[in-house]
Order: sequence, then structure tokens, then C-alpha cells
Amino acid sequence: MYHLTMGEIKFLKEYLTGDSKDGDITSSILGERRGRFVITVEDQCVISGIEPVSHLFETVGASVLLPDGIGSGSKVGKGVTIMTVEGLSREILRVERTSLNILSRMSGIATLSRKAQDIVEKASSGTRVAGTRKTTPGFTLFEKRALMDGGALPHRMNLSRMSMLKDNHIAALGGGPEGIKIGVRELRKLYGQYNIIEVEAEDPEQGIAALEAGADIIMLDNMSPKECGKVAARIKDRARELTRSVTIEASGGITMENLSDYAPHVDIISLGFLTYGARPVGFKMEMV
Amino acid sequence: MYHLTMGEIKFLKEYLTGDSKDGDITSSILGERRGRFVITVEDQCVISGIEPVSHLFETVGASVLLPDGIGSGSKVGKGVTIMTVEGLSREILRVERTSLNILSRMSGIATLSRKAQDIVEKASSGTRVAGTRKTTPGFTLFEKRALMDGGALPHRMNLSRMSMLKDNHIAALGGGPEGIKIGVRELRKLYGQYNIIEVEAEDPEQGIAALEAGADIIMLDNMSPKECGKVAARIKDRARELTRSVTIEASGGITMENLSDYAPHVDIISLGFLTYGARPVGFKMEMV
Amino acid sequence: MYHLTMGEIKFLKEYLTGDSKDGDITSSILGERRGRFVITVEDQCVISGIEPVSHLFETVGASVLLPDGIGSGSKVGKGVTIMTVEGLSREILRVERTSLNILSRMSGIATLSRKAQDIVEKASSGTRVAGTRKTTPGFTLFEKRALMDGGALPHRMNLSRMSMLKDNHIAALGGGPEGIKIGVRELRKLYGQYNIIEVEAEDPEQGIAALEAGADIIMLDNMSPKECGKVAARIKDRARELTRSVTIEASGGITMENLSDYAPHVDIISLGFLTYGARPVGFKMEMV
Amino acid sequence: MYHLTMGEIKFLKEYLTGDSKDGDITSSILGERRGRFVITVEDQCVISGIEPVSHLFETVGASVLLPDGIGSGSKVGKGVTIMTVEGLSREILRVERTSLNILSRMSGIATLSRKAQDIVEKASSGTRVAGTRKTTPGFTLFEKRALMDGGALPHRMNLSRMSMLKDNHIAALGGGPEGIKIGVRELRKLYGQYNIIEVEAEDPEQGIAALEAGADIIMLDNMSPKECGKVAARIKDRARELTRSVTIEASGGITMENLSDYAPHVDIISLGFLTYGARPVGFKMEMV
Amino acid sequence: MYHLTMGEIKFLKEYLTGDSKDGDITSSILGERRGRFVITVEDQCVISGIEPVSHLFETVGASVLLPDGIGSGSKVGKGVTIMTVEGLSREILRVERTSLNILSRMSGIATLSRKAQDIVEKASSGTRVAGTRKTTPGFTLFEKRALMDGGALPHRMNLSRMSMLKDNHIAALGGGPEGIKIGVRELRKLYGQYNIIEVEAEDPEQGIAALEAGADIIMLDNMSPKECGKVAARIKDRARELTRSVTIEASGGITMENLSDYAPHVDIISLGFLTYGARPVGFKMEMV
Amino acid sequence: MYHLTMGEIKFLKEYLTGDSKDGDITSSILGERRGRFVITVEDQCVISGIEPVSHLFETVGASVLLPDGIGSGSKVGKGVTIMTVEGLSREILRVERTSLNILSRMSGIATLSRKAQDIVEKASSGTRVAGTRKTTPGFTLFEKRALMDGGALPHRMNLSRMSMLKDNHIAALGGGPEGIKIGVRELRKLYGQYNIIEVEAEDPEQGIAALEAGADIIMLDNMSPKECGKVAARIKDRARELTRSVTIEASGGITMENLSDYAPHVDIISLGFLTYGARPVGFKMEMV
Repeated sequence: MYHLTMGEIKFLKEYLTGDSKDGDITSSILGERRGRFVITVEDQCVISGIEPVSHLFETVGASVLLPDGIGSGSKVGKGVTIMTVEGLSREILRVERTSLNILSRMSGIATLSRKAQDIVEKASSGTRVAGTRKTTPGFTLFEKRALMDGGALPHRMNLSRMSMLKDNHIAALGGGPEGIKIGVRELRKLYGQYNIIEVEAEDPEQGIAALEAGADIIMLDNMSPKECGKVAARIKDRARELTRSVTIEASGGITMENLSDYAPHVDIISLGFLTYGARPVGFKMEMV
Repeated sequence: MYHLTMGEIKFLKEYLTGDSKDGDITSSILGERRGRFVITVEDQCVISGIEPVSHLFETVGASVLLPDGIGSGSKVGKGVTIMTVEGLSREILRVERTSLNILSRMSGIATLSRKAQDIVEKASSGTRVAGTRKTTPGFTLFEKRALMDGGALPHRMNLSRMSMLKDNHIAALGGGPEGIKIGVRELRKLYGQYNIIEVEAEDPEQGIAALEAGADIIMLDNMSPKECGKVAARIKDRARELTRSVTIEASGGITMENLSDYAPHVDIISLGFLTYGARPVGFKMEMV
Repeated sequence: MYHLTMGEIKFLKEYLTGDSKDGDITSSILGERRGRFVITVEDQCVISGIEPVSHLFETVGASVLLPDGIGSGSKVGKGVTIMTVEGLSREILRVERTSLNILSRMSGIATLSRKAQDIVEKASSGTRVAGTRKTTPGFTLFEKRALMDGGALPHRMNLSRMSMLKDNHIAALGGGPEGIKIGVRELRKLYGQYNIIEVEAEDPEQGIAALEAGADIIMLDNMSPKECGKVAARIKDRARELTRSVTIEASGGITMENLSDYAPHVDIISLGFLTYGARPVGFKMEMV
Repeated sequence: MYHLTMGEIKFLKEYLTGDSKDGDITSSILGERRGRFVITVEDQCVISGIEPVSHLFETVGASVLLPDGIGSGSKVGKGVTIMTVEGLSREILRVERTSLNILSRMSGIATLSRKAQDIVEKASSGTRVAGTRKTTPGFTLFEKRALMDGGALPHRMNLSRMSMLKDNHIAALGGGPEGIKIGVRELRKLYGQYNIIEVEAEDPEQGIAALEAGADIIMLDNMSPKECGKVAARIKDRARELTRSVTIEASGGITMENLSDYAPHVDIISLGFLTYGARPVGFKMEMV
Repeated sequence: MYHLTMGEIKFLKEYLTGDSKDGDITSSILGERRGRFVITVEDQCVISGIEPVSHLFETVGASVLLPDGIGSGSKVGKGVTIMTVEGLSREILRVERTSLNILSRMSGIATLSRKAQDIVEKASSGTRVAGTRKTTPGFTLFEKRALMDGGALPHRMNLSRMSMLKDNHIAALGGGPEGIKIGVRELRKLYGQYNIIEVEAEDPEQGIAALEAGADIIMLDNMSPKECGKVAARIKDRARELTRSVTIEASGGITMENLSDYAPHVDIISLGFLTYGARPVGFKMEMV
Repeated sequence: MYHLTMGEIKFLKEYLTGDSKDGDITSSILGERRGRFVITVEDQCVISGIEPVSHLFETVGASVLLPDGIGSGSKVGKGVTIMTVEGLSREILRVERTSLNILSRMSGIATLSRKAQDIVEKASSGTRVAGTRKTTPGFTLFEKRALMDGGALPHRMNLSRMSMLKDNHIAALGGGPEGIKIGVRELRKLYGQYNIIEVEAEDPEQGIAALEAGADIIMLDNMSPKECGKVAARIKDRARELTRSVTIEASGGITMENLSDYAPHVDIISLGFLTYGARPVGFKMEMV
């Protein structure tokens, strides 16, 4: 169980405001009736979203009970009860759909992430999969948590957390190895070592230029597993000559099928489809 | 082109705040450099999201140009340029990923909605498909717009806009036809005819009870096309006897495959998968 | 007792912020002194505002006690104690004036609404009086509750809840029956049956046009009771021919005196003066 | 013309948000149609509210034209056009009702205030009428402006602006002249001369105690004109002995009828009914 | 112990949001570990900030214990424990630095204020020192409290609380005694006696003009102690002739060294350096 | 000139709201009078704050002119005009004090930072000085900018940007080298290489433990220059053996006097006094 951040709590409040600022004009007729409701899962999955959903129910005065062994990151089978909620029925029903939507989307991402990380670990212990910025606006923070619940790295949380020079930035700086050098140097001057600099490299020359300019992470974009291996090796060799640390990330054109071919060559594999391609898991809530 | 609501504008601002409240510490080094960027689509689709994305770019001072014939709701082929953006590169790149994420998800939903509505119209002119509340928290308003861009109805926008007595509400009111009557009567007393009342019916008796109590819309839940047809006919007959209008909606267990079997029997078919099951469409932005 | 919505709670917080964001620089000198205060009513009335005022006092840590039989909607006589409040005196006094202002205005509206509804019910059981949008900006939500506490319908809560084609809209669409048809058709296409459409009609032709176009509610504007009766009958007849439901509302030029003449002809009578013309009821709070 | 404060602008935005956060789902169908609308007044009155209403229309992109001689504080006759508005019809209609409600209530207060101030000035040049805190929550700032537009003083704007020891405060401090002394002394110690201290006095002893303790304003509560004159004279005499300035305010039980009897004895007469008892003035907006 | 205002509480929340909206990504790994921490002071000082810091810790669920005799305004010696905090270590550490920063800056101001007020009181009992508007944006409210904890007056809290005609205002109104008269008269007309009017005077003529126009406080700007004494005496004499109260304030060019020379001549001495020139006091927090 | 972030703009708006939400009740009487004002500096300094102050004036509709060669980071002499502002006098005066307070504090920090960085560069080219978290709550973002304007590194912007295991964290994890290892390992597992990990080391063993566990930056706390040099050398040697990058930071007990003794041994020297010990620079604004 993690602790929700102030940013996450603010978004949860926005969800409720957006849905029932002027009241749930159906449930309000239930008055002071109290009820007990169970949430069950309709497919086998890795659960994610327990923390935000518990917060939502507690926010409206309901109490939440989790069965033993259930928490974000747990693998559960079809039909399992993952949560029991008790309180004023009107308030629980007001929050029902938002809660199920959160569980559904987060568990979908966690399940896919777990599967991808398992494939990678089997092919190369120590290599990690990561998400990308291909998230859903307004739901990003929870998608990042879902990646982590599934064992993946969340990657960059937002544009203020670390620097990443991508193709468009490099082009705007004049392009090529020279553009990369200008960019890395300027960023280092402003923030020193208190900022991570990642550079997207499209060929070995760009990768070496990034390393020599001082990049911390080099992302090999859209290369075949074989090409990726060759370029990564060259960069790592050069880093050793400079007694420098460097992290190699692969991204672009990678699928669940060829994932294991990339794993031995790099430190991290970032995958957009973990967030945009995950199938939501079914959940339902019923009065008991 | 529609006009964004204050609620939509607020969410767009939240997206930017969430992503770059403390600045885009990569793009900021681009200083006063200006650039021209094109956004192209990577798959054939129905475009959606032109309005919010234009707003985002304009918010950061960039100007937006739409090619002739491009707007939300347009069908476009693979590789087509859907937007040209010009302004300070640092600002355009700050907004890039959020914009592509919006276009990607909204166009996915619009494309699937268009397809579903076309199937239904072919089977029964006048019948409409609709979304449900199975949306992504924090992105719901735009998913509703995407449904509309694809020709589907957005259904209930939030819990304050109309009343819907679902299984859990009816159970909390004692269950069965009697629970339905209590619920409809109480809602009518509070809000009169200024509120739409929809009731979820699981069998013909519940449907008839809902009609007689005064429901405006009756949703037939999880019935086969045949059963659905039979129950809908009974309710419509009874409505005629009462000289009353009534709308019949089908929902639950409906797929793209059996959609056309439901169409002739009902007024509206609501489909959760239009929002949760749509595949995001690929878009990319490049400096020119 | 109803449950305040998030929107109402937000406004109550704004009231306090507006009044004492930088502190109540008189009451603050009372330090930790505690007190017990009673609120009494100075005129016979229908009470309204118990819920928001209780919330205000509880927000600042005071406890609220309601005498038996006192609640929003209760009729009370002059001099009756309607609430006892106990806690830190500085906090109770900080909230005093805002609380009395709320009770005063809401009870005024509830009292007048009760009176109007009683007149109408006597003349025609089943007919309802309703408020309008002639409310006080910033206090509208509570004025709508006060209408309901007095037995009136709140009518449209805001511009997003239902559609109402008024004279200016119809004029902008070309005017006359044709303008009405265009408007109703367009709204129905966008939102289907998930949106109520009300149309303001100034003569029988407009009323019939509205009905045939598919309007749910037809508002007869500024007609005499007799004229109103004639037009309403024509519309109802036509609705029967079409086996359609329709609601008839009268508005404009109606007073407490002629109210009972309209009642037999229509379903709803909406009255602007219920909110703008109600005399505030006197309340006072005293330490005991 | 005054300049709206940030607090007033924030409230105006809240009014729009409350009314059309999710859009005006009627007017939105008017698309890009533009229109010209005039606002006319239905009764003779002192106009108030020109500034906030102009701001609302300008906020939604419309342009506002004021006829010569029209501004807040102007006296106008029945049927006069006070404003012409031009722009997108959908936006102007979205703001129509809120604007008319503001004009209506503010002009009612300004008209009554003007009348009361005229009566007082005639009886005693230099004496001023003032409002009180008996305002409508959420609309207070505009009611204060309306008082000023009618020539009355707004009195205390909120609980942070000056101190006022009322009966309940004095009671909490032990009551009587001693309670008054404790209160005044403590307030003076905390804020020095940077804070105005007003004290409510129910008899001459309390008035003298307040003066001697250092109060700036003494409010004579619920006294007859004659009694008021006697007490005021005693306090003024004592102030002269102390070479001190003091302001005398009368309040409680004063009506439009006996107002002129109080005027010669005091500096200020504060009247709750200026805000809670003013009859809203009728305004209407029509397309031209 | 005072009660924090809504405005202060809002700022405290902003401080936390600014620092850890997306979480404290170090402390979060401490999970459910609890700890007990003591805060000690590193220099002799007058403590200030106990109330906001206690609020911060309580906001994150920790409990706060104050040793006997410790509170805002207390004089403490080096090394003294001023607070013990107990709760979840991750939460206490998240708030640690913000809390120490508040204590450090507020205690610095309170210590210097106490020293200045002691000097002044010794030279002239009844004379007070006061702060100015030379505060730190975003921290002003707490600097005002720190002044009060040190025995100084906070002076004007913000631009809405009282009026102060300074050199630039007077210049904009035409300058000189005439500019002063216009300004005072206009302000008095608008707000009557419910607003304090302070005027900055640069010579005796301006001071007399301000008094005669009706100013409540006259600030003698940048005069030597001797000159200040002469001008103050002239103004006080004229006030006696008019049986009027007036407050004299000295400001500009005053230091800790010459402070006692000004004290006998004026009512208040306002000192910018109390806020901008105070040395922060050292505090540290350690786990025990 | 940099571009203000959304977070900075939000704070600037808060400053104005805090100061004049209910209006500047002095300046408002200036009506439509326009004026031209110059801001001059009263001491030689490195200017900082041009961007936020320009934004403030532009926000209220004034235009800003900067003399050639003036910008944040410029060294200027006493009496120099740094900005000319033109517009409505009432609006410029409303913003005056907040603007001067910003310039004053930021320029103080920039001036001291520049001086410290110059000392360090002279002693060891490539070594940088940095700020710490000892900032003023509510003004931190601008203090960080001021550090950068003076050539110093801003260090960690907030608790979400990078991880820093300090003494209290290490103690909570069991203390000593073992506590360090647990902490670094856990953080790396959660965020991989997308997060910088800094560790505070109090002796060589802790420094080596941090390096071996994978820390990116090691902060040597409270060591003499000589000790610092010895420990830094040991850590750098070990890093070379591991072909690893590592950054060494010194902090604690460092003054302007001994700064140059630390410079040759480390990469970064972080100094709390750059923010809490800087003397504000005097600025004034005058009408011309």
C-alpha cells in the first residue's frame, strides 16, 4: 500500500466533482439507507487501483475492507472479491462507476506490465521495462502507478522531472551530433548534476555524441534487436574508456513478441503500448 | 467546430499543469527559436479532438492551420496531415505529447463509434448507438465529445444531468417492480418533468412497472436480441394504451457482431466498449 | 434532511472565505471562551436552510442541536427556537451573520412557495408551481433548495441540465414555427432522448409546431388564463393523436391573485417572483 | 465607472461556471451566428451593475455599447435602453440571465439607497445612510457596490476590515461597560490605530464606556429618535472634553418613514433593509 | 496561541503542494515506520511560528507536543527543545524543511521586533513600533504574525484594509497640500468613517493639510528626530484646536541606533528592516 | 530572459490576490489617470526578478520598457534605472510594493550567489556553488531563479524532483552504511535510472557505502576542507575502480571566507546562506 500524493488526491476530487458536483440526482433519494457492497473481478489479472479507490470510498464516509492477500500488485483469479464497502448507499453508489473505471483501467495496465516484465526478466535478469508518455490526459498519474504495480518503471513523470532531448529538440538546435552537444551542454550548465539528461539517438554517431557530451541515458530509437545490440555495445565500450556510467534504453517498434530479443542488449525497454494498448479488466459492484 | 465548455477548458489547463507546472526543462533551452510543425495521422480513421488540441496550441501562443476538409468527424486516410502548428518551438514541444494523446484516444473512439452507428443505421434507420459511463476518469468529457464526433449519442454526461435507477438502486429501495415504483414516484415528486428518469429493467415485469410508474426511458439489460424484441414490443404496446411516449434502450452483452440484430427492436443501443475498447489511433508531430 | 452537494459545500466555503479569509478581527479576541447560542425566528414561516447552516457551524467546530420537529420545510410560529449552537464563541460569531442571512432568504422563498403551491393544489390537484432562473447570482443553488423546501419544483438547475428554446433562440434560428422546428431537430440529433427540450410558445401555432417537432415541455408565455386554457387544450389534443406525452407550463404575468385561474389548465406554473419577490424572514442569534 | 476588483471578477466567473460549466446546451446550436441585443429597463430606477455586466459580456467575447449618460448611478426612466451588446448569439444568450439578474438586484438596491440618502440629506446635510451585513451570501460584494452607486456608504466590507463589538461579543467578555473596556483595549493593543473599533451601545453608559475606552465609532442600537438624540449629545460632549473625534451611528428599528427624525442627531444611519428589502427592478434583453 | 485564518491555512497548503505535490520520493520508502522527532533552536531568540508549524504537522497526521512555557512570543535560550513531533516518519520528514524554514524566518523577525519595541518603550512608554509592507511575497501573512509575536504592530495587512496616500498618489492627484486634500476628501466620500486614511507628509504644510482634510494618521517621512518632533508638535496643536484625534507615525531612515530619539515625539514608528533585515534563527529537527 | 512557468505565474497571481483581492482602496480614486514611473536601484548589485516583475505590470495592463543591457543577471551600479513602466497609475501603484519586494529579495540572492561562484571558479574552474532547501515558503521558486541568475545551481527544486537520503532517513532505515544500502536499493528498484539519488555521508564509510549501493551524488556533510578533500579522493578512487560516474558535494559549516578552500576538492558546494543570508537590495519607484 502506498500513500497517495497531494496531486493524486486532487485528481480524485476532480473526478467526483466532474461527476456529481450538483449531486447524484438518482442516489440521493436513498436517504439514510445503508448498504454493504462487494466488488468482484471478472477476469484473471494483476490488481491495481486499490489505494485510490479506497480513498474515494473513505472520502464519502464509507468503510473499506480488503480480503487477505489483496492489494495493488496481487494476481487474482476470475470472480474473486477484491473489496467490501459499507456505508450510506447513496454515497457508495455515487462513487461506484468512477471506482470501477479506475480499477478497470489500472488493472489492465498492471496486468500487461507484469507480463512484459516477466518476459524481459526471463531473457535478461536486471533489464527493466518502462512506460512512456503515451498516457491518457487527466489519468496519467494513475497509469504511472499501474505500471509500477505491474513491476515496470514509470519513466519520466512529467516534463519538469528530467530532461529528454528528442528528435524535434535536436532538430531545433541544428540537428545531428552537433545539436545534441549544444543541448546537453546547455542543460548541464543550468542544472548541473541535479538533472538527468536523456538523449534520443537514431544512429551510433548520435549515441556516441550524446555520451561524450555527458548524457546520462541514451535511448536507441526504432532499431532492430540486432542493430540495437551493436550500437549499445559501442556506447558501453566508449563509456568504459571514459570511466563513465551510462544507461541504454530501447524504444520504438517493440512488441510483446520481439521483446525478449531486445532484453539482453539494453538496461531498459520503454513501451508505449503498456498504457495505450492495455485491455481494461472487468469489475462489478453488487449489494449484498 | 464546437465551442469548448468552461469545464473542458479547465481540464485542458489541468493537463498542462500536471505536465509542466514547473516548466518543460528540456524545451526551455530552445529560447526564442520558432518552428513549424505538422501533425500527421498513421492510420485511417475518423478524426476527433481538433477543438481541444487547437485550444492547447493557441493557449501557448502558437497558431494553428487546418487543411481544407479537416475537422472533428472527418474521415481521413493514413499519412494525411491534419494540422500545421507554428510558433515558439519550446511552447509547441511542451504541448506536443498531451495533444497527440488527446487526438489519439478521441479519434479511436470516434472511429469505432462511426462504425457502430453505420452498422445500426443500415439495420434500422433512426436507431442510435450511445456511449455509457465506462469512461476514463479525468478524460470523460473528451470521450463524450468523441462519441458525438463519431455520430453516437453521449448518453448521460454526469450524475446530475438525469436520473437512472439501476439494479443497485432498485435493490436498495426494496427490489422488484415495487422498488421501481417507489423510486420513480419520489424522483418525479422532487423534480417534476424537468428531469429524465431512466430505469434498468431485467425482465418484462420490471419494464412494465417502470413505464406505468412514469419512466421516460427503459433500459433492457443483458437480453438476447430476440428477448429484447419481445419485451420492447410489450412495453411499446402498453405505452400506446396510455397515450404515452417511451424510449427503449438496449445494453449489456452487445458486440459489433450482434449489434445489427438488436437495432430493429429498440431506439437506442448503449455500448460500453465504444469508450473502453477503442484502439487509439497513431499520430505524430514533426518539425518542417 | 438532504445531503449537501459538492457544489453547495464549495459555495458555503466561498461565503466564509469572502467574509473572513483574513480572520474575524473582532471575535478573535475571545480566545478559547466557549458559548451556547440560540437562533430564533421573528415571523411565522416555513423554515429553509437548516442543512447549509448546520454545515457552516459544524465546519468551524461547533455542535448543532435541532429541536424536535424542526427541519427544512417545517412551518414554525414567531419566536420559536430553531437551532442551538455550542462551541468556541469566536468561531460561532464569525459564522453568525452568514448563517442568519442564509436562513432569512431561504425561509422567505420557502414560505412564499408553500403558499403558492397550496393555492394551486386547491384549484387543481396535481398541478405544480415552479421557480425560474430569476435568482440571485452566487446564491442560486440555495434558492433552488428553498423552492423545494416550500413544495415547488426547482425548474432547470443550470444551462447544462436541459434545453430551453426561448424567444431569442428562436429568433436567432429564423423565428416562428420554422425556427422552432430547426432548433428541436438539431438538439434531438445531438443528445437524443437524454435531454429534455422545452420550447417557449407565444401563440397556438408555435405550440403545435413545438409539439410536432418533438418538444417535451411547451411553455405558454404571457397568456391570460382563458387563452392559456384554450391553447393548452389544442396541444394536448394533438399530442393524443400522436400518442405522445407532453407537459404544458404557464409563465409570465402570473400573480398570487390569479394563480388559481391558471392551475386547472396546465401541468406546471413557473413563477419568477418566488425567488425575486420573497420577503426575507427575520432570525436572530443570542448567547444564553 | 469603477474598476472591478479581483474578488469581484472571481465571483463573476463563479456565476458563469455555476450556470454553464458543461455548456449552454440550448444556445450552443446557434453555432457561429452573430446577433445584436438591447437591454431595456422596465421601471424608473437608479441603474447599478453596468460594470460587472459589461465585464461578463466582454468575457465571452461580445462588445458592449452604453448610450450617452448611462452608467452606474444614473437615474433612468421606464423603457430606456441601457446597453447594446453585439457578438456571437450563443455566448450572449449564455450570459443573458445572469446579467439581467445582476442588473435587477443591484439597481433595486441603488434605487432604494438613493431615496434614503436623499431623505437624510434633506433633514441633515452631512449625515449619511449606510448598509449593513444583512446581504445575500455570494452576492455581497455587488450589493455593497449598489449601495455606493445609490450614494450610501457600504459599511464594513467583511470581518477582516474593521472591528465591531456587538452584543454577543460584549456578553462573551463579561457584559456591560466592563466588557466593552476589555474588548476595546485588547483590540487596540493588537492592531493599534491601524484598525477601526466600532462598539454597539444599548444605553448611555455603554456609549460613554466605549468612548472612554477608545472606540472610534459608537452605534446606538434600537433607540427612538429622541433617545438617540440625547445619548448622541452626551457622547459628543464627553468627546469634546477629551479632545477626541468620535462618530455616532444609529441602527435598528429605523424605517423610510422615521429616517428623517434620526438624521439630525447622528453621523451615520445604517439600514439593513437597503439590501434585504429592496425590490428588484425589471430588465429584459431582446434581439434586434 | 492564536487561531490560523483561512488565508493562512491556504498558504500553508500551497507550501506543501509546491514542495511535494507529486510526493516526497525519498521519504515515501519509509512506509509505515513511525518516529519521534525533536525540534531544537540553535540561538537565543523570541520564538514565532508555533501555530503554523503545529498545523502543518497535524495536517499530515502527526501529533505535536509543546514543552511548558513554549509558545509564540516566548524568549528561549540556545539548544532548547521547542517541539516534539510523533507520527509516520515519511510524513514528518516531508514537512520538516518547510516547518524549519517557517520557524527560522518568523523567529528572526519576532526577535528583532521585540528588541526594537523594548528600546522604544524604554524611551517613551506608549509608543509602538510597527512593520511596513516591505515583506516577502507569499510569506507576508506570517511575517505580520511574527511582528505581533515580537510586540510590534503589523501595520496595514493589505491594500484593501485601509487607505494610505503616499508620494506617488499625491503626485498623481496634482501634488502638494492640494493633492492631499483631493485624495482625503474623495476617500471619505466613498467609505465614510469606515475606512482609516493615512497620509505621508514630507513637510509641515503637508502634515497640516492632511489633518485639516480629515486624515486619521499622518506619517512623517524621512525626517531627523528633531525635525520630526517639531512637525509632530505642530500637528498635535492644530488637532487640539479642532478637537480632533490624530495619530503621528514616523518612518524612513530610522535605525536600531537612533530609534530611541524618535520615540518621544510620535505614536508609532514603522520600520521596514523588521521584516527585510531580520536574521533567520537556526532550528534543527532530529529523530530520537 | 526566461519564460515563467505555470507554477510561477500562479504564485504571482496569489501575491496580487493576497494584497488587493478587494481592491487597492487608495489607488482606486485615481480613476483613469495614466502615469509613467521609473524603477531605480539603490545599491550596486546583480539584478534578478526582471521577468516576474515585468509579468506583474503587464498583467495589470501596463507596458514595460527595459534599458539596453538590463536583464536578470546584469551587474548594475547604484542609482541606475532598471525599468520604466507606463499605464493606469492606479494599477501600477497597486502592484508597486509587490514588485519592489520581488526585485529586492531576488537581487540580494543573485548578488551573493555571483560573488560566491566567482570565488569558487577562481579557486577551481568547473566547481559550482548551489543553493539548498533553506528558502522562504511561498517565495521558493523565485529564490531558485535568483540563484541561477547569479550563476549558482538551484539544487533540488522540490521533494518530487530527485531523492536525497539525509541523516533522518538513514536513521529511520536502521542507520549507518546498512541503512544507506537499503535506501538506495529501494529507490533504484522503484524508479530505476529515471531518478537521481543523493546520499548525505558523515564519514568515509558512509560515502563508500553510498557509492557502492549506486548513489549518483554523495554529499559530505560538515567536514573541514582537509577532511573533505581526503574523503572525496577515496570515493573518486573507488568510483574509478567500478568504472562509475559520481558527483561529490560539500555542505555544512562553509562560509564566504573558507569557500575557496573547499572548491578544489569537490564538484559542488551547496550553501544555505545564499538564500537565507542575502541582504535585500534597495529599489524605489517614482512617477516622472
